[in-house]
Amino acid sequence: MIHGKNYIGFDLSAESSITFQTFSPVNLQELPGIFVQATLEEMEMAISKAVSAYEHYKTKSGKERAAFIRAIADEIELLGSSLIERACAESGLPEARILGEKARTINQLRLFASVLEDGSWVDASIEPAQPDRKPLARPDIRKMLQPVGPVVVFTASNFPLAFSTAGGDTASAMAAGNPVIVKVHPYHAGTNELVSGAINQAARKTGMPDGIFSSLNASDFSIGQGLVLHPEVKSVAFTGSFAGGKNLYNLAQKRQIPIPVFAEMGSVNPVLLLPEKIAENPATLASTIAGSINLGAGQFCTNPGVLIALKTPETDVFKEELAVQIRKLLPEPMLHTNISNNFERKTKAFFDDSRVDKLAESVKEPEGLRGRPVVALVPGEDFIANPGLAEEIFGPFSLLIECIDKSEMQKVIKSFGGQLTASVMGTSADFTAFRMQIESMQEIVGRLIFNGMPTGVEVCYSMQHGGPFPASTDGRFTSVGADAIKRFLRPVAFQNAPEDYLPDELKNANPLCIWRRIDGGLTKDQIKE
Amino acid sequence: MIHGKNYIGFDLSAESSITFQTFSPVNLQELPGIFVQATLEEMEMAISKAVSAYEHYKTKSGKERAAFIRAIADEIELLGSSLIERACAESGLPEARILGEKARTINQLRLFASVLEDGSWVDASIEPAQPDRKPLARPDIRKMLQPVGPVVVFTASNFPLAFSTAGGDTASAMAAGNPVIVKVHPYHAGTNELVSGAINQAARKTGMPDGIFSSLNASDFSIGQGLVLHPEVKSVAFTGSFAGGKNLYNLAQKRQIPIPVFAEMGSVNPVLLLPEKIAENPATLASTIAGSINLGAGQFCTNPGVLIALKTPETDVFKEELAVQIRKLLPEPMLHTNISNNFERKTKAFFDDSRVDKLAESVKEPEGLRGRPVVALVPGEDFIANPGLAEEIFGPFSLLIECIDKSEMQKVIKSFGGQLTASVMGTSADFTAFRMQIESMQEIVGRLIFNGMPTGVEVCYSMQHGGPFPASTDGRFTSVGADAIKRFLRPVAFQNAPEDYLPDELKNANPLCIWRRIDGGLTKDQIKE
Repeated sequence: MIHGKNYIGFDLSAESSITFQTFSPVNLQELPGIFVQATLEEMEMAISKAVSAYEHYKTKSGKERAAFIRAIADEIELLGSSLIERACAESGLPEARILGEKARTINQLRLFASVLEDGSWVDASIEPAQPDRKPLARPDIRKMLQPVGPVVVFTASNFPLAFSTAGGDTASAMAAGNPVIVKVHPYHAGTNELVSGAINQAARKTGMPDGIFSSLNASDFSIGQGLVLHPEVKSVAFTGSFAGGKNLYNLAQKRQIPIPVFAEMGSVNPVLLLPEKIAENPATLASTIAGSINLGAGQFCTNPGVLIALKTPETDVFKEELAVQIRKLLPEPMLHTNISNNFERKTKAFFDDSRVDKLAESVKEPEGLRGRPVVALVPGEDFIANPGLAEEIFGPFSLLIECIDKSEMQKVIKSFGGQLTASVMGTSADFTAFRMQIESMQEIVGRLIFNGMPTGVEVCYSMQHGGPFPASTDGRFTSVGADAIKRFLRPVAFQNAPEDYLPDELKNANPLCIWRRIDGGLTKDQIKE
Repeated sequence: MIHGKNYIGFDLSAESSITFQTFSPVNLQELPGIFVQATLEEMEMAISKAVSAYEHYKTKSGKERAAFIRAIADEIELLGSSLIERACAESGLPEARILGEKARTINQLRLFASVLEDGSWVDASIEPAQPDRKPLARPDIRKMLQPVGPVVVFTASNFPLAFSTAGGDTASAMAAGNPVIVKVHPYHAGTNELVSGAINQAARKTGMPDGIFSSLNASDFSIGQGLVLHPEVKSVAFTGSFAGGKNLYNLAQKRQIPIPVFAEMGSVNPVLLLPEKIAENPATLASTIAGSINLGAGQFCTNPGVLIALKTPETDVFKEELAVQIRKLLPEPMLHTNISNNFERKTKAFFDDSRVDKLAESVKEPEGLRGRPVVALVPGEDFIANPGLAEEIFGPFSLLIECIDKSEMQKVIKSFGGQLTASVMGTSADFTAFRMQIESMQEIVGRLIFNGMPTGVEVCYSMQHGGPFPASTDGRFTSVGADAIKRFLRPVAFQNAPEDYLPDELKNANPLCIWRRIDGGLTKDQIKE
């Protein structure tokens, strides 16, 4: 049963009289469970526990932390169908998607555990002393990454599992050695409760300190704001809208001691459709794109919100095919009334612009919170003149920009702000002919995709999910994949430290057998004393 | 002869009627050369050239960039005595120090060249495609670091060479693949002119594009502000005061597209003096500390501005020894009237506080801009009650905090904001007995030094020069050492990219023979096709 309380470390607490419920976006029915919003006192208690927990947790070895993180994955698996049912009910997403997301969440946790077990992630670097160097002796300098302290994670509306309570942000922050306080998304507070219970269960079972994890219910902005402004909070992770992310970023900059906010704020993910590719098989291309536009009702930060092509007879054929595919799409449930209303309002406003045409929309009238897939059309020149057209519309929407020539295409590309991704659909000859345009795309994105859709973000070492502003607040970091751990670390150098003060990672004998730079060269060698 | 003009790429320009001169802090005489402040139009031209240069420069191989950076070092060597004389004259620093700084500047440039030649610094990471993976095929994902675009470097008052025109910021930004625009420090505009000429000479000789480097004279804030706010500027590096750094940081956050400002803003670099060490040889300890306090007239961001000890009879003996050493110190010339006046004003205000005593000061009355070495004394309790006492006083000043016990010492340590360094002077037994206090120091610093003074920052792979705010704006990065290059890079991932689009670093054959992560494991292996 759903208890609706806040997790203040291992303790449950529900002091406020402010409550809220979650509901099904499919049938608009309220779901069981009354969630009690956290009070500022409960928030203080969670932070205080996190500060204490940090003192213990940061001394745990990588293997101990890995055992904890693996235990979280195991506990989530043990939740079985109750988790799947609740996440489906609260999100309106189909079971197959939620099952996939659960698998992804578990795989992410195990990826970070394996990163810890491997141990080389700390970027250990050593310059042994050179007492005889002239004109000055060289001291012994050794550096590695260490955790930063309590991290606040805002869970994402559109990924109730993989970007939420035990998602990539929490997993990477905890792997790095930091306690986590989750600000619960009110759309899926029940899912959060189940996963929060699993995390604390895993913490108990593996001997982790009380306060290593808390989760605070909130239906308004008070708790989120309080967390970001709190002096003991050292870093913030967020996935969501530009407005939400920028707001948190601004708050964090106003602190006496500013802290990083890693906000992944979505983008329109331009897709460049090159002429030979368009001519080759327009029907298949159209079907691929239409499927990506409507995947998860378009509620992905990597949704292909912009298509760019040259205005040619072949593009006219492709447009016909795309129109056919869009008309056939079925409206899918969106996550929440707010999201659905925004989608309706923004698409309507978009077509109020006289320079914009409607290429096609789904022929099926949407019911309830379902979003009606639609594709707009605009000439390159008009797009360049109106930067507002490049703003993301969250949902099954895309804008096809037709350019009169390569030069205009180049200008269109250069008019975009930072993007999570860009895709290029082309043949080998296309890639050669449009190399300059592709390189301009590369300059504005975190990930450049060849002959593939931007939806689907592989969780691996080489993933970059985060682009230049405004796609994210800090394009130097990724929120997906093993390197997401780098967000919650900072280097510290030890000069002439005695062997028994040094962390194992930096000891002469290299007891963890990790990769280290010695005098700049990677090796697993020991240091000779 | 000094021409006093701005370098707009390869061109000299002097359009403004606003001029200024530099002068000798030793004899207060004006030095030859009338410097013409850059106009906003000249600034626009420099940025425009940098944008064009970036397009070419970013396509240069690591070896080509390395040749350029080695050529800069060679050209600086060719400047010979003219550079040394000018830098000594403008800074008032002794020749030995300037010769050392020149050597350091050249070594830094060559270090970054060798980083480029080695090639592994791009953090290449590859996950080859797995077309047969279930339930979904895995795409091919490859990631590496790429440059960000034009970087603005503010040169530092206290290091006319090593943290200035061709210093670590410029060297690392250019090594990363970015053009650099230097905002000249008005204290040493002549030194800048000589070094700027050397950089552009090196650029011509090695075929680098016009605009890869510009330097703009400025005696007021207009050019600095214009540069930080310019949409084409992608990153900023600064070394100087907290007020100056925070100002630039705030400006950069107000932009429509915020950019990173890597400001290294100094700190008080607490030195923990542990009881056995104090008792062991108080005279030697006192002499070491006194020398560090007055090194370069205390004008180092790593100057030991705070000493922390337990109040014991042995500490009383040490205090006597320290007082003897401080009295013997000779006032050294400070860099500028402003710096000298600030030092006088701030030390005076410091002793206006009734809780603060004067332990000792140099017996020699300072002449001209010389700074009189002085050490203050305050009980731990009073220090904790008055956070203002922890603010840096730039110059030959230090504050000895006496704590009644270990617990108060711990509270004193925890009351500090972020620091570039902390030092611990102790015996093995001290390190064991005060482990908790040392660990608390580690939490607030970028570098933790055992039995050494904070002054002297080794340029190497393992150096961390940058601590938590307010020591620097971003403690995740260093401004000294090979890893300084990481500040001016961001990762980009390529998904299913054709081999001939990929940079050499990511090609199957690993033609540069660099270290790469393949499926998370470091190797120099090729990828089998």
